[in-house]
Order: sequence, then C-alpha cells, then structure tokens
Amino acid sequence: MTDHTAEQLSLNVWTTKGWSLGEAVAGCVEQGVPGIGLWRDKVAEHGLEASAKLVREAGLTVTSLCRGGFFTSPDWQADNHAAVDECVALGTDVLVLVVGGLPSGSRDLAAARAAVTDGIAELAPYAESRGVKLAIEPLHPMFCADRAVVSTLGQALDIADEVAVRTGCRNVGVCVDTYHIWWDPQVFAQIERAGAAGRILAFQVCDFLIPIPADALLGRGHVGDGVIDIASFVRAVREAGYKGFIEVEIFNQEIWDTPGDQTLRTVIDRHTQLLAELD
Amino acid sequence: MTDHTAEQLSLNVWTTKGWSLGEAVAGCVEQGVPGIGLWRDKVAEHGLEASAKLVREAGLTVTSLCRGGFFTSPDWQADNHAAVDECVALGTDVLVLVVGGLPSGSRDLAAARAAVTDGIAELAPYAESRGVKLAIEPLHPMFCADRAVVSTLGQALDIADEVAVRTGCRNVGVCVDTYHIWWDPQVFAQIERAGAAGRILAFQVCDFLIPIPADALLGRGHVGDGVIDIASFVRAVREAGYKGFIEVEIFNQEIWDTPGDQTLRTVIDRHTQLLAELD
Repeated sequence: MTDHTAEQLSLNVWTTKGWSLGEAVAGCVEQGVPGIGLWRDKVAEHGLEASAKLVREAGLTVTSLCRGGFFTSPDWQADNHAAVDECVALGTDVLVLVVGGLPSGSRDLAAARAAVTDGIAELAPYAESRGVKLAIEPLHPMFCADRAVVSTLGQALDIADEVAVRTGCRNVGVCVDTYHIWWDPQVFAQIERAGAAGRILAFQVCDFLIPIPADALLGRGHVGDGVIDIASFVRAVREAGYKGFIEVEIFNQEIWDTPGDQTLRTVIDRHTQLLAELD
Repeated sequence: MTDHTAEQLSLNVWTTKGWSLGEAVAGCVEQGVPGIGLWRDKVAEHGLEASAKLVREAGLTVTSLCRGGFFTSPDWQADNHAAVDECVALGTDVLVLVVGGLPSGSRDLAAARAAVTDGIAELAPYAESRGVKLAIEPLHPMFCADRAVVSTLGQALDIADEVAVRTGCRNVGVCVDTYHIWWDPQVFAQIERAGAAGRILAFQVCDFLIPIPADALLGRGHVGDGVIDIASFVRAVREAGYKGFIEVEIFNQEIWDTPGDQTLRTVIDRHTQLLAELD
C-alpha cells in the first residue's frame, strides 16, 4: 500500500535547522518526504558536488534553492551568479530571491526598489542561459527596511513584467509564502495573475504566530498553529495552475530546539491534515 | 516676533504617555504647540466635560480622537456611538477608527473584513447626524490578526467608497499614519486618491525603528530616528490637498520613560527640521 501522506511535501532545510544536510536528506528518505528545499549555507557545509550527489541518489526533488538577491548591496553580482550555478549543480531550476532592504543609512525606498528591478534585469539573462528561474519572494512589510523592499505579490509581478519588457527573459516569477503575504487584501487576485502568467515558481507555507516574538524573524509556526487559513492558499495556487510541491519553511527557535525527526513528523502530520481539509 | 516652529503641529497625548491630560494641555500651551490629539482613556480620567473645557480654554485645536472601531468584537455599537458623542463634546469632527483584528479563534480574514465594512456602514449615518467624520486607520500588516484587518490605504479607501454607495454618507475617510503605511508600493498613488476624494481626515507621523523591539507595538521613534522618508509623506498629503495638522503619535517605552516636557521639546525640534526639509 502506497503511503500518500507526504505527497507533494517538501522539507525546507531551515525548518530542521539543527540537522546537517546529510541528516535532513536521511530524514526525508526515512519518513517518505519526496521534496527538499535547500539553503546555500547548508550546501556549502556539505560541499556542492557532494550535496548534489546526496540528494540525487536519495531520489529527492530539490524544490528550490535559497537564496540569491540582496540587490541593494554592493557586489551582489558575483554572489548571485554563483547561486545560479549552484542551482544547476543541484538539479533545481528555482532560485529564490530575497531582494534586499534599504542600503545602510538610506531612506530612499523608491531608489532601492528601482535598484532591485535593475539587478533582476541584469541577472535574468545569465540565469536563463543556465536554465534557472528567479523566484522573487515578497517578504512581510515588517522586513521592508532590512531584508526585502519587495513587500507584495503584486509588486513582485510588476517587476517580473518589467524585466520581461526590458530583457525579453521569461524566467522571472515569484515565490508564494503564506507567512509573508497572508494579510494582503489583493493576494488572491495576485495569485491568480501569477498563475495565469506561469509565474508561480515556488510555494512555501508556515503559519503566522501571535504575538510576534521578541525576534520578529522567528514568529513562524507549524501549519495550523497560527492565524492563517493556509488551505485557502493551497486552493488558490492550485486553481491558478500551480502543480508543484508544498514546501514547509519555518523559522522558530522552539522548533529549532526540537529534534529534527520529531519536527519532521509534525510537518508531515500537519501536511496530511492540510490535504484532508482540501477534500 | 512670532514663533513659527510649532506651526501645524499637534501632540498626540500618547506620545507623552506619562502626562495627564492637564499636563499635556499645559505643556502644549507653554511650548506653543497649537494642536492636540486625544485618546479616550485620558479624556475619561479627566472627565469628558472638564476635558472639553480644558482644551477649549487653552485655545488648542483637537485634531482627532482615538479611537473607535473594533468592529469584529461583539457589542461594538454602544462604544462607538459613545466615541462619536465624545468627539462632539470635545469639539473635534474626526474619530480615528482602529477596525479590529480577527475574532478570537477565527482565521476567516475575508469575513472579518466584511464585518468591518458592515460596521462602518452602520456607524456612518449616526456619526454624520452628529457632524463627525470617521477616519479609518490602516495599521501595519504585522497587526492584521490582532488589531486591524485594514492594512493598506487603498483598502481603507475601498471601504469608504463602499460605505458611500451603501449609505450615501460622505463622512468616511482615512487617517494617514507614516509608521503603518510607509512600505506600501502603492502608498503615494493612494494618498493622491484619498486627497482627490477629500478623504484625508488626519495625518499622523512617527518613524519606524529597526530592529523591531520585543514588543512590536512600541517600535516607533521620533521623526528622523528611523527608516521613513517622512518629508515625502508631508509633501504628498499637501499636494493631495490636505491642509490640516501634522500630529505626532509615538509609542515607545524609552520615550515614555522620558519627562514629558523633554519629549515635547524633541517633538518640536524634529517638526521644525521636517518643515525646513520641505522648503
């Protein structure tokens, strides 16, 4: 009898932060999780070629590599070209972009946003030549100043459209992450727009916890533990034509302090409940 | 020689939280601040009629009363009618609305937003009959779940439009607060829209501090201490036709721990610098 519980599930390796890449891959294999979302730091620890071999031999689909971006920093080019090359080596065609915040000391948000569009337009042709797609990830507006001046899905799609006009490249899309965009009054219309344009490249889920913890970055929870109607987002991306994985990416100190195999069991349980909610 | 430094300045009484209403009014008079933004808790402490007499005799303009709203709670009606009546007694025609978050245990954001529109549509005719305008305040998306399901200026204006269609009432507008909406890619277009419709009823300023403090509610700073280009917002509301006060509302524990007269001096200094930046 086939076990369908972990169908379409991908474990982002930061969810089980205490695990090395080797442990994460072994955990996925053991618990029947078919997808894995990688971060460059964990790949670097294990070695790029060794990581590629490891996930390939384990039969895992690499659903995304996090992350390129930070276009508002000097010298972003070399690092982003390397990230594209790492995607190729790892066998994934999706590079997630966290675009960067305001440059230090600047309050010129419009200029920072223009720099992001310019940077993506500069990177897109290289990525396209390597068969890699760029998934712009809008981050929650609470991270606008220091991490990502792209705050909404609509804004990310406008950038993708602009890059297509400027460069002819069709390889720019979005990463839909429930935690960052659940509050947006326009979000479902923009998911529909993204799907119609074939721009939903990655779909990440976790919940938004209340109250926001002392470190605002870590206020993410297992699916079902927060305030987001995550099933409505799964339905929306599916109706928009997205057929890919549901990648679970959680930043949360308490979860990070939990043994990885236990966290992964919870991830699978919540994923199963989520899929059941859709039926 | 006339002192122009505090022209168009209004002190929101929560900025000098340690001050009683009497102390805040005396401070404004002493330092030449012509406007004051009131909160209902401080008015209640001092007594409604006594508060009205106090500000009137001091010659202060009451730029807003905070706050009505919380339409997603049961029994919001009586409290909001009372808030409207308090506006009349205090001689202000602007009631600021913090609309409320998700009802306890609910994840139905669409329903909460519909309840807010229904609530405002129900309140608007009463407010209009009393000569009071309702200023919907979009709150930063980080407060969407627990304080305000209205997260953008565009969304607030859509509600105002909808209420006008349903009720014929023209007394619903917005409170533009830099802290809450500075990150919004559509914000300047929406300020223009709000101005064209005559819907900018209040303009509050403070800065957005990085990093976000442990209590996310308190990450507001004096103008100039954070990441927002506040001058660009003053220009925008002016170009949109807003001729009212610039009300300084800051929630910040360190500022609250500072003596009120010192805080008010800083508020005036920053206001003067802000006006100079516009010239």
